[in-house]
Amino acid sequence: MKEKDFISIIKTTLNSGYIGDDCAYLKDLGIVVSQDNLAEDVHFSLKYASPYQIGYKSVMVNISDICASGAEPKYLSIGLSLPEYIDADFIREFYKGAKTAAGKAEIVGGDITGADKIFVSVTAIGSANDRKISSRRNAAVGQKVVAAGNHGSSGAGLKLLSGMEYNNLTGEEKNELINAHLMPLAQLEFSNTIQKCARGKYAMMDTSDGLADALASIAFESSVLIEVNFNKIPHSKAIEKLPDFKDLVLYGAEDYGLVAAVDNPADFTVIGEVKSGAGLKINYGDCFEFLTIKDVEKNLFKHFKE
Amino acid sequence: MKEKDFISIIKTTLNSGYIGDDCAYLKDLGIVVSQDNLAEDVHFSLKYASPYQIGYKSVMVNISDICASGAEPKYLSIGLSLPEYIDADFIREFYKGAKTAAGKAEIVGGDITGADKIFVSVTAIGSANDRKISSRRNAAVGQKVVAAGNHGSSGAGLKLLSGMEYNNLTGEEKNELINAHLMPLAQLEFSNTIQKCARGKYAMMDTSDGLADALASIAFESSVLIEVNFNKIPHSKAIEKLPDFKDLVLYGAEDYGLVAAVDNPADFTVIGEVKSGAGLKINYGDCFEFLTIKDVEKNLFKHFKE
Repeated sequence: MKEKDFISIIKTTLNSGYIGDDCAYLKDLGIVVSQDNLAEDVHFSLKYASPYQIGYKSVMVNISDICASGAEPKYLSIGLSLPEYIDADFIREFYKGAKTAAGKAEIVGGDITGADKIFVSVTAIGSANDRKISSRRNAAVGQKVVAAGNHGSSGAGLKLLSGMEYNNLTGEEKNELINAHLMPLAQLEFSNTIQKCARGKYAMMDTSDGLADALASIAFESSVLIEVNFNKIPHSKAIEKLPDFKDLVLYGAEDYGLVAAVDNPADFTVIGEVKSGAGLKINYGDCFEFLTIKDVEKNLFKHFKE
Repeated sequence: MKEKDFISIIKTTLNSGYIGDDCAYLKDLGIVVSQDNLAEDVHFSLKYASPYQIGYKSVMVNISDICASGAEPKYLSIGLSLPEYIDADFIREFYKGAKTAAGKAEIVGGDITGADKIFVSVTAIGSANDRKISSRRNAAVGQKVVAAGNHGSSGAGLKLLSGMEYNNLTGEEKNELINAHLMPLAQLEFSNTIQKCARGKYAMMDTSDGLADALASIAFESSVLIEVNFNKIPHSKAIEKLPDFKDLVLYGAEDYGLVAAVDNPADFTVIGEVKSGAGLKINYGDCFEFLTIKDVEKNLFKHFKE
C-alpha cells in the first residue's frame, strides 16, 4: 500500500488538516470537493470498457465520494488527456456516459490535452448547505453500522472481465456482475437520508476499496471497534455460489456502496455496531475474525492487487 | 488544434453554457473552478524539471487560471498518478513546490494512484465573493487592453531547454528565460486590481497559449476588433536579441501573464484598445498585421507545436 505511505508524507509536507477523507470539506465556501484519477490499463481497459462506460464510471466514482460526505453533488470538472488516435466519436461517447452518470449534477469544465495513454481526472463539487457532513473520524461507541449497495459484485465482474471462468454462473448472472463493475451506481438516496436522519455526528465512507477497508478505516480513524455480522452484509445472490465469496464481499473493490456509523439507521440494513476498542470484528455466526487495519490492507493486496 | 474541435463536440454533447472560459463560474456557490492536466513528456520532462519544479508549476498554472477570472485563489486539489519507481523524495519535493506555488491558497486533497508515466491534474477553486468575475465574452468597444507579465520569456526558455543554442545570450539571460519557463509567476496583484477597478464588465485571460491566442480569443468571443501596439507589449530585454523575437512575444506560450479588456486600466500598461470589427490587429509602428483567430491558431501551431 505505497499510496497510504505517500499520503502520510503529503500530510507532513503540507501540514494540512484536510487530507484524509474522501472529500475535503471547505466550510467557509459551504462545499465539499473530491478528485479521482483514472489511468488506462490501471483503472480501466479499452479491451472491455467502451468510451461511454469509461466516461460514465469516471464521473460516478466521484459522485460516490460526494455521497460519502453527505453533501449534494452539484458540479463536475473533467480533465482528459488523450493519445493521438482518439477521435470525435470517442469524445462524444465519453461525454454522453459522463452526463448520464452526473444525473442532476452538471459538468462545467475541465481540460483536454495530449498524452501517451488515456488519462482521466474528475473533480466533483458538492453543496454542504443545510447538510450534515460526515467524517471517518466521527464514529462513536453505541452507533449502528449500516450499509447500502451489493458488496462483491464489482470485484466478481472484474474477475470475469479479466478471464476468470466462474462456470457455475448463468449468463444472466455474469452480465449482472460485469455490469456492476462497468456501470456502478452511487448511493445518492442512502447518503441523503443518513445525513438528514443523523441526530449527531456520523462517519460515512464509500466502499471503493472494499467493505472491509472502509469499515477498518473508520474504526482506525475514530479509535473504536467496529463489529459486523457477515451474514447481514448486502450482496448479490449470484456471488454466493463462488469459491471466493467471502473475499469478494469483504475485499472486492469498486462497488461504490456506502457504509455509515450513525446514531439513527433510519430504515437501512444494520450490519453491526460501534463498540469501544480498536479494529474490525467480523462475526460469521459460528466463528469470528478480528482484523486490524494492517490485516485488511494485507488481505486487500493479497486478493485483489497485483 | 484538435483540442478546440473536441471542445466544441463536448459543448454540443453536454449542451452546457459553462464550457469555454479558463474557469467555470458557479454563481450559486460563489466560486470559480479550474482544472489543468499535465502529462509527462507532453507538458514537462524529468530531463530538465525537478520534482519541486513540476509540483510548483502544476499548481501555479491553476492559480493563473483563477487569476484570469478575477476570483481569489483559495483551495487546490491535486490528482497524481505515478509510475512504480517514484519514491518518497519525489513526493516530498513535488508537494514542497506545490505548496510554495499555492501561496495563500491551501492544498486540501486529491488522489494518488499508479500509472505508466507521471500524470498530474490540479483543480483550483477561487472565491467569487465580493469580486467581479471576468469572461472572455465581455470585451466591449472603447475598452483599453492591458497586459501584465513578460511575454516570450517562457517560450525562449523552453527552446533553450530543448537544445536551441541562442549564442548571443549571456549565461544570466539564459537562466532568466529558463526560470521563466520552469517557475512562472501568476499575476495575482494585476488580477485583483483589475477586478476591483473595473466599473463595468471586463474580459480577462491568461497567456498560457500565448499572447496572440488570448487576444484573438477575447476578440472572437466578444465579436470585436482588438488593436494592439506591438512595441508596448511587456517583454524581457533578453529576447530582443533573438531571431524569433516577434514570434516569441506573440506565440510563445506558458508565460502565464494576463491580458484584460477593461474600462479602467488603473496604472497598468495599456497595449491597445477594443474597436468595432473582428479579429486582432497588431501595429508595428511602420506597418501592421491583421490576424483572425484561425491565423493565430495556424501560427501557434507552426511556431511552437510539433
